[in-house]
Amino acid sequence: MDGAVKLLEALAATVGAERVLTDAADTEPYFTDWRRRYRGRALAVVQPGNVDELARVVRACAEAGVAIVPQGGNTGLCGGATPPADGRSVLLSLSRMNRIRAVDADNNTLIAEAGCTLAAVQQAAEEAGRLFPLSLGSQGSCEIGGNLSTNAGGVHVLRYGNMRELTLGLEVVLPDGRVWDGLRGLRKDNTGYDLKQLFIGAEGTLGVISAAVLKLFPCPRAQAVAWLAVTGPAAAVALLGFLRDHVGERLTAFELIGRNALELVLRHIPGARSPLPAVPEWSLLVELSDPHPDAVLDELLGGVLEEALGHGWVQDAALAASLAQRAELWALRENVSEAQKIEGFAIKHDVAVPVSRIPDFLAAAEAALRAVWPVVRIVAFGHLGDGNLHYNLSLPRAEDNVAFITRTADVNRIVHDIVDGLDGTISAEHGIGQLKRAELVHYKSQVELDLMRAVKTALDPQGLMNPGKVL
Amino acid sequence: MDGAVKLLEALAATVGAERVLTDAADTEPYFTDWRRRYRGRALAVVQPGNVDELARVVRACAEAGVAIVPQGGNTGLCGGATPPADGRSVLLSLSRMNRIRAVDADNNTLIAEAGCTLAAVQQAAEEAGRLFPLSLGSQGSCEIGGNLSTNAGGVHVLRYGNMRELTLGLEVVLPDGRVWDGLRGLRKDNTGYDLKQLFIGAEGTLGVISAAVLKLFPCPRAQAVAWLAVTGPAAAVALLGFLRDHVGERLTAFELIGRNALELVLRHIPGARSPLPAVPEWSLLVELSDPHPDAVLDELLGGVLEEALGHGWVQDAALAASLAQRAELWALRENVSEAQKIEGFAIKHDVAVPVSRIPDFLAAAEAALRAVWPVVRIVAFGHLGDGNLHYNLSLPRAEDNVAFITRTADVNRIVHDIVDGLDGTISAEHGIGQLKRAELVHYKSQVELDLMRAVKTALDPQGLMNPGKVL
Repeated sequence: MDGAVKLLEALAATVGAERVLTDAADTEPYFTDWRRRYRGRALAVVQPGNVDELARVVRACAEAGVAIVPQGGNTGLCGGATPPADGRSVLLSLSRMNRIRAVDADNNTLIAEAGCTLAAVQQAAEEAGRLFPLSLGSQGSCEIGGNLSTNAGGVHVLRYGNMRELTLGLEVVLPDGRVWDGLRGLRKDNTGYDLKQLFIGAEGTLGVISAAVLKLFPCPRAQAVAWLAVTGPAAAVALLGFLRDHVGERLTAFELIGRNALELVLRHIPGARSPLPAVPEWSLLVELSDPHPDAVLDELLGGVLEEALGHGWVQDAALAASLAQRAELWALRENVSEAQKIEGFAIKHDVAVPVSRIPDFLAAAEAALRAVWPVVRIVAFGHLGDGNLHYNLSLPRAEDNVAFITRTADVNRIVHDIVDGLDGTISAEHGIGQLKRAELVHYKSQVELDLMRAVKTALDPQGLMNPGKVL
Repeated sequence: MDGAVKLLEALAATVGAERVLTDAADTEPYFTDWRRRYRGRALAVVQPGNVDELARVVRACAEAGVAIVPQGGNTGLCGGATPPADGRSVLLSLSRMNRIRAVDADNNTLIAEAGCTLAAVQQAAEEAGRLFPLSLGSQGSCEIGGNLSTNAGGVHVLRYGNMRELTLGLEVVLPDGRVWDGLRGLRKDNTGYDLKQLFIGAEGTLGVISAAVLKLFPCPRAQAVAWLAVTGPAAAVALLGFLRDHVGERLTAFELIGRNALELVLRHIPGARSPLPAVPEWSLLVELSDPHPDAVLDELLGGVLEEALGHGWVQDAALAASLAQRAELWALRENVSEAQKIEGFAIKHDVAVPVSRIPDFLAAAEAALRAVWPVVRIVAFGHLGDGNLHYNLSLPRAEDNVAFITRTADVNRIVHDIVDGLDGTISAEHGIGQLKRAELVHYKSQVELDLMRAVKTALDPQGLMNPGKVL
C-alpha cells in the first residue's frame, strides 16, 4: 500500500474519517493564504479535537516522515500557514481545539487551547472581570495558536507587550509526537531554560502549540483619546517621552498616521471625517487608560497636551468628548489598511527601529526612494510607541504601478537597508513565513543563522515541522 | 609542555599576565560562594577587559577542551558561579567589562556590559532621567551579567517583570568563541527565533553574556507606602485583586511578612519597631508609585484601604506620612534576611505557586511540617504579588537544629512536593546552580529534561560551559 494512503488511514482511525479532509471543495480554504499571495497543496487537512488526538497525528506523520503544516485562523500576512506546493505534507488545522480550559481570576490567568479565536479569549477574560489586552483587526477569526506562533503585536504593545509577554506557560506537541506540559501559571520560575520562549514566534517550525496560560489584567474603567497634529516625527518622539514621564503606564496607545494614510481613509471609508480643520502632515492618535474609575483622564491629557503645545511639538488637538467620538478617532486609524486595500496595490513593509531613530528612518527612506521614483506615494503609519511602522509604497497613477511592482525587490532593498543601518528589523510584528525568508537570510549574521539552525536541528531533526518557513 | 600551562600562556598573551590570576591569595575570593556553602578550584581566574579579549579567551579554552565558569559579582545563592572541585576549569571574571556603552533616553534603553554592577546601571539610568527598576539587596556588588544569567527578580517584579522582561537585546560569546551580536533595542522584532531568551536564566551554561540592551522607565515622582495587618493569606490574595482593580499599575510592591519574620527583625535589627500596636499574624507592605507628580496617591491608597477594612480583609493599617516613615517600613521587609542570618541556621526555600494557591500552600506546608516537627518555626515572607515566597524553617531551640539540619532532604521533599502539587516551582528567583540540581531532575518531566539537554547539546556540544550547573 502507498505510504500516503496508509498514513491517511491511520489519521482517520485517530481523529475519525470526517476529520481528514481530502476533497478539493473542503480543503480549498486551507490551501490559500488570507492575502491570496500563496497557494499550496497537502495530502489532507486533519482536524484533531484534543491534545491526545493531536499528539497521535503528529507521531503518525513523524513515523511516516511526512511534513506537517500547522494552521489556525489562516489570517497570517506572510504565508506562514500555507502548505508547500508539492502536496506531500499534512495540513494540521487546530480550529477544533477551542476550549477555554480554565480561568483563574485571582492569579490573573486563563488557559486557552490553540484553536480559540482571539475574540473568544477576550470574552472569557471579560466574563471574569479581567482584560486580555491583545487586540487585532482579525480577532474574530485569528486563533491563539497563531497569535503565539507569530508573537502577535497590535496597538496595545506599548502598554501590555507582545503575545510573548502575555504568555506564562505552554503545552506543545513536539515533532516526535510527545507532549511537553509547560502549562505553568507562574510569574517567577527559574528552573532551567525557559523552553516556552523557543516556541513563541517560531511559526510552527519547532512544534505545535496546543494550549497556553495567558496573562490577564484589570479592566480599564476610564479612558481618554485625542487626535493630534504634530510638527513632525521628531516632535512625536519628544512628545512620547514627555507623555510617559507625566502619565506613565496610563499611556495605552501612541499611533502615528502620515498625511497620505489619513487621506486614503477619508477618501475610501464612508463616514470618515478629519478630526481637525486641516489634514495634518503627521497625526498622532493618543489613548490613556486607567483602571481607577474616578481617574480624571481627560483633564490629565488636556493638561499635558497644553504643555506640549507650549513646547511646539503639537499644533492642534481634538480630544474625544464621548464614547462615539473615541470610536470615530480609532476608526480613522484602524481603517488605514482597509482604505489601502480599496485604493489598490502597494509594496508593504512592517519595520521597526529604536523609537529614537524613527525620524531618521522616515527622512532617509523618503530621500532614497524619491531619488529613484520622485513621485512615489508613501503611506506611513503605525505603532510609533514601539518604533514599529507600516510603510506602504505605490505610484500615484495606477497604470505606473504595473512596472513598479516588478521593482519590489529593489524597493525592499532600499527600505530594508536603511532599517538595517539603524539597527532595526525587517519584520516587527508580521513574522517571516514564506514572504521574508530570503530577506531574513540576507540581513541576519552568519552566527545568528547558525544558532537558529542549531536550535531547529536539535528540536526537529527530521525537518518535518512547517518546512519552507522562517529558515 | 603541559596543556594547562600552554593554555595559561595563551590566555596571558591575550589579556596580559596580570589578568591571569593563579596565586591562592588572589584567586581565593572567586573560589567560594557568597553563602560559603560551596568551594571549588580553577586553573586560573581570567579577567578580560573587553568582548574581543573575552572571545579570544573562550576560543582558547574551547580549543584546549577546558571548561569555563563565568562569574560576575559572586553574590548568587545557589553556587552557580563557583567552579568544580577538580580545579581543571578556567574561572572567567566579567568584572572588568563594566562600561555603560550607550544611553538612549528617547528609546528608553541603555547598553551595559556584563560586569557593570546593578547599582551602576541604576545610576546611569537616573542620570538620563529614567528608572532601571531591578532592585536587589546585593545591588552594590551583583553584576548585570549575573542578573541576566539568573533572571533576577526582587520586590518590583509585580510591576516591571523579571530581568528577562527588562532585556531587549544581548551580546553573547558562544562556547566556540564566536560573538553573537544581538544588541537590538527594539520593542518588536519577529525575525525568527528569539535567541536572547536562551541565554537569560541559563546560568552561563550556554554561553557568556557580555553586554545587554536594557529597558528604562519613567521615574516615579509620587509614592505611597502602607503597612497592613490582614486577616490571613486568603484576605491578602483578595486584597491584591481589589487593589489592582482600583489602582492598576500604580501598585509597585505587595509583600507578605509572616509574624515570625517580623519578630526576627524586631529582635535583631537595631531601631526596628512595629508599625502597628500588635505584631500581626500576617502583615503586608504595599507600595503605590506614579510618574505623574500631582498624583494624590496617599489619598487613593487611603480610600482603597478604607474599603478593604469594610470587606474584612484588613484589620489595621499604617500609612507612611513621610519619606523617613516609608524607609522605615521598607527596612522592616528588607531586613528579614539579615535578621534570619543573625538568628542562625534555617532550611530555606524559594518557591512560587499561582497567586491564587498561596493560601493552600501555606496551610498544607504548615500542616505537613508540624505533623513531623510540631514546634517547627516557619519564617514565611516575600513577593505575594508574584506568588513567590521565601520559606525558612528551623526549630526554636538552637541545639535541636543540629539534628534538624541532617533532615534537610526530608524537609525539602515535604515543601517541594506540596509546591509541585500546586503547579508551582522549587526555584522562583534564585536559580538552580549546584544547590538545586538534584531537585530539578526530581521534579521536571522527562520530556522537559530531554528538551533542555537537546538545547544544551546544540549550543555547547563539548559541554564546557559552566559544567555541573543547572543540568
